[in-house]
Amino acid sequence: MSKIKIKPTVSPFPMPVAIIGAIVNNRPNFMTVAWFNRLNGNPPIWGIALGTNQFTLEGIRANKTFSINIPNTSLVEKADYCGIVSGRNVDKSKVFTIFYGELKSVPMIQECPLCLECRIYDIIELPRITLVLGEVLSTYTEDQYMSEGKLDPKKIDPFTFSQPDNKYWSLGDKVADAFTIGKTFKK
Amino acid sequence: MSKIKIKPTVSPFPMPVAIIGAIVNNRPNFMTVAWFNRLNGNPPIWGIALGTNQFTLEGIRANKTFSINIPNTSLVEKADYCGIVSGRNVDKSKVFTIFYGELKSVPMIQECPLCLECRIYDIIELPRITLVLGEVLSTYTEDQYMSEGKLDPKKIDPFTFSQPDNKYWSLGDKVADAFTIGKTFKK
Repeated sequence: MSKIKIKPTVSPFPMPVAIIGAIVNNRPNFMTVAWFNRLNGNPPIWGIALGTNQFTLEGIRANKTFSINIPNTSLVEKADYCGIVSGRNVDKSKVFTIFYGELKSVPMIQECPLCLECRIYDIIELPRITLVLGEVLSTYTEDQYMSEGKLDPKKIDPFTFSQPDNKYWSLGDKVADAFTIGKTFKK
Repeated sequence: MSKIKIKPTVSPFPMPVAIIGAIVNNRPNFMTVAWFNRLNGNPPIWGIALGTNQFTLEGIRANKTFSINIPNTSLVEKADYCGIVSGRNVDKSKVFTIFYGELKSVPMIQECPLCLECRIYDIIELPRITLVLGEVLSTYTEDQYMSEGKLDPKKIDPFTFSQPDNKYWSLGDKVADAFTIGKTFKK
């Protein structure tokens, strides 16, 4: 079928979902994002794209630290809530059970299967976005999310986000083993 | 259950998958990536994390242009192949049917549901990674991937990638409507 041109402002299909935690004005605050990914393996650096005027960003700039929390499908309502309302207007410090790791300035979410404690590595200003590069200092999970000593995606039960339809999706079936299925084509 | 600390070099769950296209040494080349996302909405800027010595990066630097192609599950074998072998050693120009949009330096993949024609916006050097920021100039799809004038994730049928288990996953069931389910919690 022939290609058609559409508006260039599309999104990847689908995007991972994380809840960013930070202390803002002495209060823990949480904000949901989908524009992020790992950018450097070792040292582990993740990039998070935040609106330049986001409330959460004020706390990240002030403390130079933040958390990245990966929610599971049971947290979808709370995660969506944290993406709808701003900490400038409402207190989101009671939405989750909070725990702390090494740093008192990094609130993390007990209910999330995976929590990363980060320190600012760099900040890059884009036209309408501040790209926060965070170096991961420590990562927290629970035995129940692991299989044979490794994080298990099916046990983590994450959800992804798609635009422009604005839907959250569960993890589907395994399609193939990476770095393996391609060897078939190679021959 | 109590939290345990694991190695900080973990990945988001799960990551989107794209195949990057570029002309390298006068030949179209394709390379599969999972460390990328949209970073700025308008203008549309996407960030792609590439190993600093990647063959594809030489072409992106030389032409200042590249493509981002979102594959569907039927392309998993070819996509994985393009993530395993380097264009430095093998000719990947015949793996897909190639088409061009506005720019002769941006090979795109006919078989992919979504193709983005990009120009370098900025390049940021990280410890072991070159973060290529690309401004999306044009986006190409087909009518068969749309519903009511919008891109439809289920019709696109993308797959995601998880580490450390190294698996590709299909899109699962709809969990909830974004910017909607959270309103319930709000009340």
